[in-house]
Amino acid sequence: MGRYVVGVDFGTLSGRAVVVDVADGAELGSAVHPYPHGVLTERLPDGPPLPPDWALQDPADHRDVLRTAVPAAVRAAGVDPADVVGIGLDATSCTMLPTRADGTPLAELTVLRGRPHAWPKLWKHHAAQRQADRITALAAERGESWLPRYGGRVSAEWQLAKALQALEEDPEVFHRAERWMETADWLVWQLCGRPTRNATAAGFKGLRQDGRYPSADFLAALHPELPALLPKIDGQLLPPGGRAGGLTPEAARWTGLVGGTAVAAGGVDAHVTAAAAGAVAPGRMLAVLGTSTCLIMNADSCREVPGVCGVVDGGVTAGRWGYEAGQSGVGDIFAWYLDRALPAGYAEEARRRGVPVPELLDALAADQPVGGHGLLALDWHSGNRSVLMDHELSGVLVGLTLATRPAEIWRCLLEATAFGARTVVEAFEAAGVRVDELTAAGGLTANRLLLRIYADVLRRPLHVVDTAHPAALGAAIHAAVAAGAYPDVETASAAMAAPRRETWHPDPARAAAYDELYAEYRALHDHFGRGGTEVLHRLRALRRRATS
Amino acid sequence: MGRYVVGVDFGTLSGRAVVVDVADGAELGSAVHPYPHGVLTERLPDGPPLPPDWALQDPADHRDVLRTAVPAAVRAAGVDPADVVGIGLDATSCTMLPTRADGTPLAELTVLRGRPHAWPKLWKHHAAQRQADRITALAAERGESWLPRYGGRVSAEWQLAKALQALEEDPEVFHRAERWMETADWLVWQLCGRPTRNATAAGFKGLRQDGRYPSADFLAALHPELPALLPKIDGQLLPPGGRAGGLTPEAARWTGLVGGTAVAAGGVDAHVTAAAAGAVAPGRMLAVLGTSTCLIMNADSCREVPGVCGVVDGGVTAGRWGYEAGQSGVGDIFAWYLDRALPAGYAEEARRRGVPVPELLDALAADQPVGGHGLLALDWHSGNRSVLMDHELSGVLVGLTLATRPAEIWRCLLEATAFGARTVVEAFEAAGVRVDELTAAGGLTANRLLLRIYADVLRRPLHVVDTAHPAALGAAIHAAVAAGAYPDVETASAAMAAPRRETWHPDPARAAAYDELYAEYRALHDHFGRGGTEVLHRLRALRRRATS
Repeated sequence: MGRYVVGVDFGTLSGRAVVVDVADGAELGSAVHPYPHGVLTERLPDGPPLPPDWALQDPADHRDVLRTAVPAAVRAAGVDPADVVGIGLDATSCTMLPTRADGTPLAELTVLRGRPHAWPKLWKHHAAQRQADRITALAAERGESWLPRYGGRVSAEWQLAKALQALEEDPEVFHRAERWMETADWLVWQLCGRPTRNATAAGFKGLRQDGRYPSADFLAALHPELPALLPKIDGQLLPPGGRAGGLTPEAARWTGLVGGTAVAAGGVDAHVTAAAAGAVAPGRMLAVLGTSTCLIMNADSCREVPGVCGVVDGGVTAGRWGYEAGQSGVGDIFAWYLDRALPAGYAEEARRRGVPVPELLDALAADQPVGGHGLLALDWHSGNRSVLMDHELSGVLVGLTLATRPAEIWRCLLEATAFGARTVVEAFEAAGVRVDELTAAGGLTANRLLLRIYADVLRRPLHVVDTAHPAALGAAIHAAVAAGAYPDVETASAAMAAPRRETWHPDPARAAAYDELYAEYRALHDHFGRGGTEVLHRLRALRRRATS
Repeated sequence: MGRYVVGVDFGTLSGRAVVVDVADGAELGSAVHPYPHGVLTERLPDGPPLPPDWALQDPADHRDVLRTAVPAAVRAAGVDPADVVGIGLDATSCTMLPTRADGTPLAELTVLRGRPHAWPKLWKHHAAQRQADRITALAAERGESWLPRYGGRVSAEWQLAKALQALEEDPEVFHRAERWMETADWLVWQLCGRPTRNATAAGFKGLRQDGRYPSADFLAALHPELPALLPKIDGQLLPPGGRAGGLTPEAARWTGLVGGTAVAAGGVDAHVTAAAAGAVAPGRMLAVLGTSTCLIMNADSCREVPGVCGVVDGGVTAGRWGYEAGQSGVGDIFAWYLDRALPAGYAEEARRRGVPVPELLDALAADQPVGGHGLLALDWHSGNRSVLMDHELSGVLVGLTLATRPAEIWRCLLEATAFGARTVVEAFEAAGVRVDELTAAGGLTANRLLLRIYADVLRRPLHVVDTAHPAALGAAIHAAVAAGAYPDVETASAAMAAPRRETWHPDPARAAAYDELYAEYRALHDHFGRGGTEVLHRLRALRRRATS
């Protein structure tokens, strides 16, 4: 008789549930529920328009995933709900919402429903940039000890920037929020009736270090009323795989599972994926290759790595220092190219061959020797959040000739993101954090040329996970730990991680040729990104001025 | 009773004749004859394949223009051939062919017909680059006084490089050539039965300065047998508008004109266009905007301008110093963009609107304020023959974001070529050669956004000529001088130049904004082109190595 766990992943546009065998991680069934309201960027439902850079979600959409995708996945798996021993979930982060003390989202109170700040702010809500800049500047000025753990820069996406924006722009909502919750933690609360916090989000997105959030004194220096945030974000902190409680009768009705079933602490999507990828041991870096790239790794020591998004004690698994780093633009640069710069004819040719367009381009570009296109790009179309931490940078393309062909530009862009990944890996190693191998997950793992290039450029074995739902599988592995099936996430990961679809090994000749191109990339990178020229900043400023 | 002249322009792919009223330059009729053999780049007709970078023409194609286009133009004009007082012609240059002493092209001798070096080498025959580099290096080493008049660099397109290539690769052809002729001069010979040379090509393409070609001593240092070239290129030198002779009976039969009709000295296409554009007075620069840009201007003094293609006493009109400068890539960069980087949908949209694709892009980009796209490009897709004189440079594009739209890249490329033109104009002014205004001719004058940008960037009035055949009209004006209808080209130009279609004046606000962008262009230009980084050369070398 098997035992099963359910993992639920709350993405940007949909939630998906997967039912997994506790013994070996086999995925037995899954279901997806797209959010009816998607991402709110233009206006609230029946409400006022939103300013630029806003991105909100509807908490009802998230709750619906528990009511629809979970029972559908259990049905699809054909397992007896009584054999499901645990449920775990992850979400994008920092995606946070204000609630009352009983967990009711302020967005669901009639009187506040028309107030944008009452709604959950999605991770990619970027309207708190000014607040983030002030937080960074003040922390630097005061020499706050936590700042270097975030590469010296606080993101506009994180909890403190979002909360400060709410306080400044709608103080009533800020103060009526008895709790500010990560969406994952709020959903766990919905499942087990008890508010908890997960250490991953608290550390990586909440600036919690050495057991505490930034001090009341620091917060008061940002805004006299901001210290009121501290009790609103306080509460029991759980490690990854910790047990938050048991399913309430109401949540049991929603999910079709049995009341009392173990509910795991919330998780962050990329971070729980490390367990699904079997990449929780030190030196095994997870690369989630999608619209952007998220790099996750455990290590045994805390080092300050330039441009790291965060280093958090127990942030990935208990007992290790978890690192998060990333690249702000990867798949979205490729999508931009396909949409805005790929000439007519390629789509038809791909249709004729019966392959997706990227596969056609890969086929046209794959056989060219390294450097044969004479091109080099900087992958900064949406800024650089890697070692440079500079949103105002932009993309660069050099080496164009009248002979340059589209597939060559395509390949050059793939390579640029690989070079971007290598700058991050080298920053880790320069700081004394070893990176032995990479495991890739995410949508871009469908691109075989990309994988070959990454292995060659990064000069490390590149494993590829074989699962369509890496984050949901990761959440399920955490559920197995919360249910007591394994003593910790590392053990559970060893038993339940997804199989490897394949491993790419660097080709020595290509890798040597890429070393040369990478040296050119680094030189351009430093020239445009480290003050050799400020042209990218000036072009940005000119654009802003011209269009304002 | 009117008097008329015929101008014939021998282009790269076709020849065209125009019949013009001597009194006012009115164009009364024209005809075009495409060359049946076009440009020979792959193989000789029924002959062996050609190596890379070769570009030949068939002399029979040129002769056919005299037999077909000239009579057709006269018929179309409805004038009596007896009222035609002169004929003039221009051709691309340096387009040169070896002939016997009687003018027979070696390519038309059965025994040499299969030998590539026996054929006319078109201006864009680029297979003599190694020879050109050696000529430049030797001239620099010996401090030849003529070298600075060519911006310090001898082009692979010019007479000496092409002749040296022939001597080295097929000495028999070199020595059997009793004459090496510019195509324009050879055609004049065909018309009047007397070999002459035109001062424009001899100066700008033949390195003739201060009354002589490079010395026998210099030539011997390149190759012991090269001094034999001197008698083969010697002969009577005529100024622009000089009378070469009268039509022979045979040429009268070909053209349908009357025997003895005045035949003008040959001309070079861009240089005779200055007369058609009314741009022969000092300070009036002609810009022939096409695949590449050719800039022609007269001045009263000889100055060494960095990157100038040449400065020649009497090279444009007798009694002034003629300057030629240029940009190696302009229209071909736009064509590259349309072919290789414009996404699907634009062609259909243009069809729907009933406009050419460039016009659609202009419409989409025209209203954006200067700098609103945040982009900047270096227009070096086919190297830089302007102030940098470096064929190994390549194009650069900076400022790309995920929001960048195709019409913005399009406009940024238009602007880049305007910035490239401004670097040339500024080099003239820095050398003490005044540039007061520009007159544009060529295919790109159809693009109104381009013209507006050029006026704003160059901060000078930009006139646009109103003629479909500027070079042929220029040849006709020279014919009028040769026929004695005017005392000199300047007087003839004043009476016969094409009307101005329009004049673009700089908009002060846009011009000021472009000053800022141009400063960024110059900084990038110097960084990538003047040793700030050698990345473009290294990428080129890597490409060469990878693909060899």
